[in-house]
Amino acid sequence: MARTASLSGFPEWLPQERLVELHVLDTLRKTFELHGFSSIETRAVETVGQLLRKGEIDKEVYGLSRLQDDEAPDASTLDKHDPHALALHFDLTVPFARYVVENAGYLAFPFRRYQIQKVWRGERPQEGRAREFTQADIDVVGDGELPFRYDVEIALVIAEALSALPIPDFRLRINNRKLAEGFYRGIGLTDTAGVLRSIDKLEKIGAAKVAELLKSELGASDEQAALALQLASIRTEDTSFVAQVRALGVSDDLLEEGLSELEQVIEAAVHRAPGKVIADLSIARGLDYYTGTVVETVLVGHEQLGSICSGGRYDALASKGNRTFPGVGLSIGVTRLVSRILSQELATASRSVPTAVLVALNDDQSWSAAQDVAAQLRGRGIATEVAAKAEKFGKQIKFADRRGIPFVWFTDDDGKHQVKDIRSGEQVDADPASWAPSAEDLHVRVTTT
Amino acid sequence: MARTASLSGFPEWLPQERLVELHVLDTLRKTFELHGFSSIETRAVETVGQLLRKGEIDKEVYGLSRLQDDEAPDASTLDKHDPHALALHFDLTVPFARYVVENAGYLAFPFRRYQIQKVWRGERPQEGRAREFTQADIDVVGDGELPFRYDVEIALVIAEALSALPIPDFRLRINNRKLAEGFYRGIGLTDTAGVLRSIDKLEKIGAAKVAELLKSELGASDEQAALALQLASIRTEDTSFVAQVRALGVSDDLLEEGLSELEQVIEAAVHRAPGKVIADLSIARGLDYYTGTVVETVLVGHEQLGSICSGGRYDALASKGNRTFPGVGLSIGVTRLVSRILSQELATASRSVPTAVLVALNDDQSWSAAQDVAAQLRGRGIATEVAAKAEKFGKQIKFADRRGIPFVWFTDDDGKHQVKDIRSGEQVDADPASWAPSAEDLHVRVTTT
Repeated sequence: MARTASLSGFPEWLPQERLVELHVLDTLRKTFELHGFSSIETRAVETVGQLLRKGEIDKEVYGLSRLQDDEAPDASTLDKHDPHALALHFDLTVPFARYVVENAGYLAFPFRRYQIQKVWRGERPQEGRAREFTQADIDVVGDGELPFRYDVEIALVIAEALSALPIPDFRLRINNRKLAEGFYRGIGLTDTAGVLRSIDKLEKIGAAKVAELLKSELGASDEQAALALQLASIRTEDTSFVAQVRALGVSDDLLEEGLSELEQVIEAAVHRAPGKVIADLSIARGLDYYTGTVVETVLVGHEQLGSICSGGRYDALASKGNRTFPGVGLSIGVTRLVSRILSQELATASRSVPTAVLVALNDDQSWSAAQDVAAQLRGRGIATEVAAKAEKFGKQIKFADRRGIPFVWFTDDDGKHQVKDIRSGEQVDADPASWAPSAEDLHVRVTTT
Repeated sequence: MARTASLSGFPEWLPQERLVELHVLDTLRKTFELHGFSSIETRAVETVGQLLRKGEIDKEVYGLSRLQDDEAPDASTLDKHDPHALALHFDLTVPFARYVVENAGYLAFPFRRYQIQKVWRGERPQEGRAREFTQADIDVVGDGELPFRYDVEIALVIAEALSALPIPDFRLRINNRKLAEGFYRGIGLTDTAGVLRSIDKLEKIGAAKVAELLKSELGASDEQAALALQLASIRTEDTSFVAQVRALGVSDDLLEEGLSELEQVIEAAVHRAPGKVIADLSIARGLDYYTGTVVETVLVGHEQLGSICSGGRYDALASKGNRTFPGVGLSIGVTRLVSRILSQELATASRSVPTAVLVALNDDQSWSAAQDVAAQLRGRGIATEVAAKAEKFGKQIKFADRRGIPFVWFTDDDGKHQVKDIRSGEQVDADPASWAPSAEDLHVRVTTT
């Protein structure tokens, strides 16, 4: 089913595949709104100056230039040093931070928003990575301060949202930067960002090579490297990680703060999202500017897919003069999820079109009467099409079958109505003012296979 | 309410404005699906070669180039003559045509699809025109042939969709290229495309100047120019345009075909969308490649806004070898509509957030119990937030008020529940397993003002 994209890195879905994606998007939206998150969208472009605000961009960015620029007949050029030059956003966090600063006077804080949009990364095509994909982000952002409880809440909302999707079992793997940084400081490793970057490579290069890195690049002793790796090996489904960390005998105020924060998240998750959330002290999220909670998420049995939902806490998501906006948020990789659902046929749509009923034509003059029947059905929420040509009934039924429409409606010359379930062949008398398909057939359903 | 965009031509909405846009998008989607249109999305980018397929692009296009292109440290450059270069799509018709050709083997024809996406045009900023905006397109495309009835149906679906929106009254102004071209040919004007382009300027420059154009540029005689303008002055709410055209005494086969087609559309519309559709023989859509039905739509009282929905019939929307795919479709300018609704406050959302209920905290220990209440309410579809801090009740109520949440839930130390409507001040006993707000308060409603 999943075909090769005609342009590498830019996936497109067939209509029946799109139904699966729509189901995922609708489910996420419904969950987010039930938890009081407001929808926003930001423009697809940011200025290069905005994208560079936090220094180097480690993501590949597409710059924009006008093709009809008359001054450059052969090529259109983008000056990379012009802060006003435009580029496509590569995530939804940078645009959201700008939006919050620009609209702070119009927003009620803590501001809860979800944002489901495409983002672009100008990856080299040969890497075969997606260059256009959809992300679904939720964040809560405060004005000056943001209670830690939102960290707990965000994790629970995401666990609930993912549980509602037609995907395999998943695990939110949660750590806390304060815990990790406090621990490193407590054992005398002061370049905590450097240690995090090394630990971040654990899954890729293994413990032995990370130990080497810690020693060669950060001057760690054997014992320091061993302790850092011991911390990163802790993984618990409950709050027992606290005792395991304490058993390593390191004391530091920041470590204590991080332990307490992570404990709150795990404690709530054990109760409210049992089995879905684990404390995983190897999670580092090396290059990002998180300051507390950090999260990655794997699909069980699909770990090599990478994280399908990541994020965490920023003490300063944005700032405006001396006003800072702390935030906590998570981002779901919708395209990554949907690609996997489709390529491995983890879920399918119950039919390939929204239409439940095709109204057949007796003859060419009956089109208007057929539209009357269709309007009655639609008025009661039943998606209905009218045949365009009065072909033989067999052909009209075949047309419905080919399109995946389950019911065909017939009206004879005396105005008697019948409806046929073309799957079973059963044909019954029906009244357009009251007939309805079963709840199962009313709308397209997407279910795990 | 509607503020200036921080980047000219790239509008962004506040959360309460976005609720109005979401309502518009949801309403369109619902109508399209009820009529059996399938959703698709295409990638935001096309190759320059694809965009140039029909010759010159008369739209301004944004080209893409990788900012991190190491070979060009100061500027990133796009070769305009490279057909593989990437650019953002400027409409949804060109991408849809490509999609149909690429996926023809997987689609059931006639293929009905809707597509709601952003498009980009690299207009000069000083013109103050939108550079990013959302379009909502429906098209039906056939393989080889497409019955004319779909032209009738598309107009009716759009009239139904627009009628469901919180917008002022509108008129679909419909003409037919065959009618116009046959007429011009019948009076001896053979450059029918040239005449159409001149007639297209009627609203901008007036009849006298159009007559001059027809004479100076197309060699029309006084009589020919007068006849062409007489045709363009015909505008009827019913099929009486047929008699008015006939009274001009021109005979031509193509003219007859066009008259008959337009008559079918108007006849159906008089019955099914009374007052919404008119035959307007001035509609030309000069630069586009339509071959039959052509449509523009105005909001009554907002005519200067321009067309909010345009389109028509293409005999060859796309082709693949000797296979052609005729299509008929219409495109709604969602951003243009929403901008107008917001700037003139034509409709508003009943509240500014999805949340119906805020669960207040008695003390910091009651957060978990409050989450239990919230989960019960959400389980019954009631959007609910939990306060993050156990502030004084007055402060928690003020927080709800500031966010636009209508109800606050209290649970006392004995587990007794009460809910307060903070608009009326009324507070009543309530059971989290059964209490619900009124249907009016359950979801955000968007209504015309």
